[in-house]
Amino acid sequence: MTEFVFHSLAFEAPEDLQIGIRARRLARLAGSGLPVPQAVALDYAAVRALANGAEAPPLPQAIGPIVSIRSSPGDAAWGGPPAMLNIGLTDANLPDLASRIGEVAAWEVYRRLIQTFGTQVCGLDAEAFDNLYYDQLKLSPQPGAADLKALVGEIKALFADETGAPFPQCPVAQLAAGLSAMARDWSAPTTVLLREAKGAPRDAGLGLIVQNMVFGLGQNSGAGLFQPIESQTGAAAATGRFLPDAQGQDVQRGMRTPHLITRAEREAAGQTQPSLEEIAPEIAAALPGMADRVARLFADRMALGFTVSNGELALLDAWPVRRSPAGAIRIAVDLAEGGIISRDDAILRIEPRTLSEILHPQIDRDARRDVVGRGLAASPGAASGKICFSSEAAQALHAQGEASILVRVETSTEDIRGMHVTAAVLTVRGGMTSHAAVIARGLGVPCVVGASDLSLELAKKRLTTSDGRVFREGDQITIDGTHGQALAGAVRMRPAEVSETFETLMGWADDRRQLGVRANADTPQDAEVARRFKVDGIGLCRTEHTFFEGDRVDRMCEMILADSPTARQKALDTLLPLHRRDFEQVFEIMRGLPVTIRLLDPPLHEFLPNAESAITRLARSMGLAVDVVVARIDELKEFNPMLGKRGVRLGITMPEIYDMQARAIFEAAHAVGQRSGTSIVPEIMIPLVSANREVELVKSRVEAVAKAVSAEQGAEVAYRIGVMVETPRGALRSGDLAKSSAFLSFGTNDLTQMAYGLSRDDAGRFMRDYVEKGVFPEDPFHTLDLEGVGELILLAARRGRDQNPELTLGLCGEHGGDPASIRFCQLAGFDYVSCSPFRVPVARLAAAQAAILTSVEEAESLPEVANLDPTAMAT
Amino acid sequence: MTEFVFHSLAFEAPEDLQIGIRARRLARLAGSGLPVPQAVALDYAAVRALANGAEAPPLPQAIGPIVSIRSSPGDAAWGGPPAMLNIGLTDANLPDLASRIGEVAAWEVYRRLIQTFGTQVCGLDAEAFDNLYYDQLKLSPQPGAADLKALVGEIKALFADETGAPFPQCPVAQLAAGLSAMARDWSAPTTVLLREAKGAPRDAGLGLIVQNMVFGLGQNSGAGLFQPIESQTGAAAATGRFLPDAQGQDVQRGMRTPHLITRAEREAAGQTQPSLEEIAPEIAAALPGMADRVARLFADRMALGFTVSNGELALLDAWPVRRSPAGAIRIAVDLAEGGIISRDDAILRIEPRTLSEILHPQIDRDARRDVVGRGLAASPGAASGKICFSSEAAQALHAQGEASILVRVETSTEDIRGMHVTAAVLTVRGGMTSHAAVIARGLGVPCVVGASDLSLELAKKRLTTSDGRVFREGDQITIDGTHGQALAGAVRMRPAEVSETFETLMGWADDRRQLGVRANADTPQDAEVARRFKVDGIGLCRTEHTFFEGDRVDRMCEMILADSPTARQKALDTLLPLHRRDFEQVFEIMRGLPVTIRLLDPPLHEFLPNAESAITRLARSMGLAVDVVVARIDELKEFNPMLGKRGVRLGITMPEIYDMQARAIFEAAHAVGQRSGTSIVPEIMIPLVSANREVELVKSRVEAVAKAVSAEQGAEVAYRIGVMVETPRGALRSGDLAKSSAFLSFGTNDLTQMAYGLSRDDAGRFMRDYVEKGVFPEDPFHTLDLEGVGELILLAARRGRDQNPELTLGLCGEHGGDPASIRFCQLAGFDYVSCSPFRVPVARLAAAQAAILTSVEEAESLPEVANLDPTAMAT
Repeated sequence: MTEFVFHSLAFEAPEDLQIGIRARRLARLAGSGLPVPQAVALDYAAVRALANGAEAPPLPQAIGPIVSIRSSPGDAAWGGPPAMLNIGLTDANLPDLASRIGEVAAWEVYRRLIQTFGTQVCGLDAEAFDNLYYDQLKLSPQPGAADLKALVGEIKALFADETGAPFPQCPVAQLAAGLSAMARDWSAPTTVLLREAKGAPRDAGLGLIVQNMVFGLGQNSGAGLFQPIESQTGAAAATGRFLPDAQGQDVQRGMRTPHLITRAEREAAGQTQPSLEEIAPEIAAALPGMADRVARLFADRMALGFTVSNGELALLDAWPVRRSPAGAIRIAVDLAEGGIISRDDAILRIEPRTLSEILHPQIDRDARRDVVGRGLAASPGAASGKICFSSEAAQALHAQGEASILVRVETSTEDIRGMHVTAAVLTVRGGMTSHAAVIARGLGVPCVVGASDLSLELAKKRLTTSDGRVFREGDQITIDGTHGQALAGAVRMRPAEVSETFETLMGWADDRRQLGVRANADTPQDAEVARRFKVDGIGLCRTEHTFFEGDRVDRMCEMILADSPTARQKALDTLLPLHRRDFEQVFEIMRGLPVTIRLLDPPLHEFLPNAESAITRLARSMGLAVDVVVARIDELKEFNPMLGKRGVRLGITMPEIYDMQARAIFEAAHAVGQRSGTSIVPEIMIPLVSANREVELVKSRVEAVAKAVSAEQGAEVAYRIGVMVETPRGALRSGDLAKSSAFLSFGTNDLTQMAYGLSRDDAGRFMRDYVEKGVFPEDPFHTLDLEGVGELILLAARRGRDQNPELTLGLCGEHGGDPASIRFCQLAGFDYVSCSPFRVPVARLAAAQAAILTSVEEAESLPEVANLDPTAMAT
Repeated sequence: MTEFVFHSLAFEAPEDLQIGIRARRLARLAGSGLPVPQAVALDYAAVRALANGAEAPPLPQAIGPIVSIRSSPGDAAWGGPPAMLNIGLTDANLPDLASRIGEVAAWEVYRRLIQTFGTQVCGLDAEAFDNLYYDQLKLSPQPGAADLKALVGEIKALFADETGAPFPQCPVAQLAAGLSAMARDWSAPTTVLLREAKGAPRDAGLGLIVQNMVFGLGQNSGAGLFQPIESQTGAAAATGRFLPDAQGQDVQRGMRTPHLITRAEREAAGQTQPSLEEIAPEIAAALPGMADRVARLFADRMALGFTVSNGELALLDAWPVRRSPAGAIRIAVDLAEGGIISRDDAILRIEPRTLSEILHPQIDRDARRDVVGRGLAASPGAASGKICFSSEAAQALHAQGEASILVRVETSTEDIRGMHVTAAVLTVRGGMTSHAAVIARGLGVPCVVGASDLSLELAKKRLTTSDGRVFREGDQITIDGTHGQALAGAVRMRPAEVSETFETLMGWADDRRQLGVRANADTPQDAEVARRFKVDGIGLCRTEHTFFEGDRVDRMCEMILADSPTARQKALDTLLPLHRRDFEQVFEIMRGLPVTIRLLDPPLHEFLPNAESAITRLARSMGLAVDVVVARIDELKEFNPMLGKRGVRLGITMPEIYDMQARAIFEAAHAVGQRSGTSIVPEIMIPLVSANREVELVKSRVEAVAKAVSAEQGAEVAYRIGVMVETPRGALRSGDLAKSSAFLSFGTNDLTQMAYGLSRDDAGRFMRDYVEKGVFPEDPFHTLDLEGVGELILLAARRGRDQNPELTLGLCGEHGGDPASIRFCQLAGFDYVSCSPFRVPVARLAAAQAAILTSVEEAESLPEVANLDPTAMAT
């Protein structure tokens, strides 16, 4: 094992040297001439050998005898054994140290070393050492050199008693033992498990740094942290902490109140202890300049860990400033504007998901969390309010100007009014794409679903936690939709923060991206929100939602339950002008941007009432006997509504509905076109297609309506017709579909449901279990399943474009707002993604990142698609 | 248009001559020296030209002047205009005809010609002609030559009055007009529509035959049909009809009672009229020999149309003997045994679907059908019985020894007991793979589903037809599951007929086929039936069915609703011995043939009671409060059970269930192996897999159980584990699955449901509409959708075998008994198909046909499968 050596950290380390992130950083800092104490490092292989019993290589001349050992993992998040300071101090070299930092400080260092060595290397109990120390402090709160010397004696005795050997008096032996202990710690089974939970690979390596000690103990000395940026906002501001007569670990342990860095900060905090600026003005003055140099060096804003030794400033480490999502944007934009990084780099630095946090109020980071239930983080943001167990109760509270939290087992279309007025939604069941989750995201309302550890008894109007706490209607709770938690009481909030730098970054992203970003917007209100978030159009306008509003649902019921074509047509005739008015508003708001309208999709029974009173009312208004209406409603019930008579199947079996919708669309487009002087070209999308003949049948009727409206208006009606690809068979037959279609838009919610044979509404019950057991790497309703659903989409996109090179390709499921799925769409050559309005900024940023990351060669290296034709082989 | 000519029918016609099936047959008969009157034919193109106004080409010398014109379509089933006889007779050539066949006969021929010409060519009303004829008959019932001459005069006058021109006196003009009229008739729009309904292509052509007349009218003359085979049984037996002094059409019209052919037949029928054998023994003696020559000529048993003219026998036409399914088998086997056709040909001659008719009683062909409802022919066979609207009523009738017909809106697991004892099942809703259809096919019970023109009011216990007829419980009806009809009353039946020749044919099929045929058999009873039909094993044993029997369902409910792992284990412990006993019986019956057992699949709520009384009983037996049980049942309800927590998802989230099942299987296999001295190697199948990790998790637990049982029994437990591929994602990821699996078996019911996004239970409502509108060419639950589902299967089979060349491939959906799907499996290189026991003979025959029809080159020409890996592109 003697081939291992200590690598010097005096210069930038070569790329292939596996010494870990901290060692690499130190080398770069030292290499650029910053005052870093001299250091060397062992690489992963050497540390692995140490753990297996190898001996440490000899230390270079320039290092020692008194050193620190620090761990240097591949990623800061993976942790690592704590540092060991002061290694190498012995009875023999103590006088020399005392001559440099004073006798008191030297004995204190010795005390600390023996205690650290005893616990971390020999595995002794820390308490026994602490007891000796505290006994001493009781005798003399400010111990002198003699006190400490006596204490060290006692500690040495304790060490010898417990280990059966005296404290080692050879610096080389101390170092060897320390290195081995840290190496073994890293490969201990429990440490490996903990590290894996943080995302580290099983075989992650560790580097170890050995650095000359610089002592913050003693006169004119101390240790501190300096940060040139305010974490929350990302704005420039000198901030940090300093502890005189201390070592770095003391600052973190917080045994004494640290001093602030600037006088201004101290005064703002109302602190009387002098700031570093007041204690050591030359040090305080040097720090900002040093931070600037470090920022340029790493092309990021870094916090500095420093030590002052006898008035000399030494830089021990530097790491990226901790930052809020808003802070991260400010930092990236400032760095780009300062010429330190490129705009592309600024775009890539922001995790798109974090934008959601910026666009919604959040629970204050420091607020106390009394978590009473956990579920899926279905719609981001947080809100407090009074529990309501029904939509009606939420509406009543809203009328009184009070905030409500709608709590349901699951939501259904009957809850939509309540969801429009509530501050947040909590459901006991349901997955990431359950009704509650989808609607809440669309409305931008915080939402937690599938909180299955809560039990809701609607009859008794009470919600019980797993440990028996009971909440009743009117009790105050808080929903954290960003983290999937329900909390007792009203918790302190932090408002949404849309800053100027946010707009700057989004502008850069828009310049860079190639994918269009459209919104799933069903109503004029949705369309307004979408425009506010700067969409490129509407990719999915679900027409059914407009049928639930006001008393329209009654007309809809009459249409569905009509006992003759005339009665049905009469009901449709009353719906036509309402439908047309909605479309006019949407077209006006979108001012000529593309609007894709999906024809009626849900099974008709979704529109029918369940409650006895509502059925009676409906029967009366239709002039029918109640049992006749009940019988008709029963007839429409389905075993598996998701796989029933819905989508284009309605359009084929009851074509009058789509006729009416097409007419409403064309008349609205014509009216808005006339008024605005722009040509409105609506896109009509046919849902749930599984065979091309379905498209042909609907298309020919839509064409007939277009001809009729053109004749009536005396002007040609322009439009595009396309297919929502959401069945696996639709995907496989996309070559056919593309011949009849101007566009294909992938409905990835349904496509995922059918590919897996898994209902999004029913999956919530075991999805968490499944993801935790690693059965699915992720919830496929949340992140597109590339291996299965992705293959279907890729194959469909290829087959479609092969048949129709002009074909527009879009994705309009919930995945439209998911960065990984957006990257997939970029690679597959899509034209746009469409997501809920509140996800639009996320999608715009993710699309820009996808464009930056996708090289031409990568796109060209996509696999070839087979042209399987099983019919040709079996005729 | 003069390039058209009459083609001679004196010799076998060249292959590419498009003259229709009858002309081709005539040419072959004439070419082989049989006494066929000389004839010529026009081809399709010429007839098409005639219809468009072209003139007929000149007739060859040998033909005429008096001829018949007959139609010759491409397929006998497509029909064609009726023949015109006696064309070419005029005032001028009548005396010559009279000299040959007598004056009375000659005038009768003239009368018929003018009447035929008037109605079929000139479109005159037949009634006016008939009136003149019947007036004459009133005057003289046996009209003489003078009477007929006068009548012809009157008819001519009528013709001239109506058409404004005298009856044409030129034979060429008569022929030209006759040919044109028949050509125009063929291309008339209504004729085309009728023809298309019979399966003819829109542009189907027609040939026209012109043949010298041979007159059956007059002394020593007559016309008849001879058949060498009895249609019902296919046995050799000279049979037919003969009418003296008649033309061929008279025999078909049945205006006079025809004479039988043999004396024996006449005596058996108790008829006094002499048989042909008695009237003209030399003719009767010649016919069997002629039939044998014709049989060899066409390699099939043919019926003969003949005329006797002045004692001379002429053969006018020959066509395949009409035959029952059983008759068809006897004929094919006899031909093969007689060396006329090969065994392969015999196998190919039998339409596999018709075997179902043989294996079940059927409605007598001649019985009057009072059809009161139509639906899907879900399970073949017919039965009469008293209407029962509940499973309980059917069981009560059964106890009294009476036949019942179970009539339900749809069936569910609660109806299974009733279905076991009922004679037939009728449901108002449901498709070909609804619960009722699948169970009925499995039980071999006739069944009609989706009879949506019937309305069933359970509360009022009445069934109403679309025209208002009402049936009540206890009323007699008949279900024809072969044709999808419900009939009023008890209709005359014909028993099932399994003959020796049937067994002979099936033996040949077994020798020839390469595909294994297994049965879907869930119980020992099913396994018995399957063995009777000579299966190669069980391809799908659904373990859930055994949990419904007797009071086992109570144990199952206790297991599902258990509130602790101990309570659950206790319930499972009581199920184990019952489960094991079932498996022991199945293994014993199958005597070492492979048995594939599917682990529990349905969502647990299917086992739970709905009725209040049952819930109360269950709560009492579990010692729980009713509202607690109701709440737990509610918790398990799902929006889309088909896409819910079922299949392997149960196995992952409640692994104790699969553990118990695996133990029952291993213990049963060991016990039977010990007793019988054969090694039983059960195949364990994991349902509803969509990710390979699911397989790994279940497999590791099954392995643990196998190890435990091996240790307990002191003998190694052998088994194979595999996957039921029934989700599209499972199919796409078959490459992964094959690495952990010994076999993949495609569950095409679910795969079809998920590929289309279409529930089999809910599709029944509009499937008929969809197939009629041509949206789907066929019900995809009935015939495998090759373009979509087929591609998924093909791709999965390739990916699976690529990863694991030893992989066994099977298909175990309902399609396993469908001949087209079996052909697909043969081409795709499958090892076996599995279908319901009563479909096994169908599948065996279809598999033999597939083997015969599949050439090596065909299988090798299958397309290449792509290796799309979208994960590789987007990381």
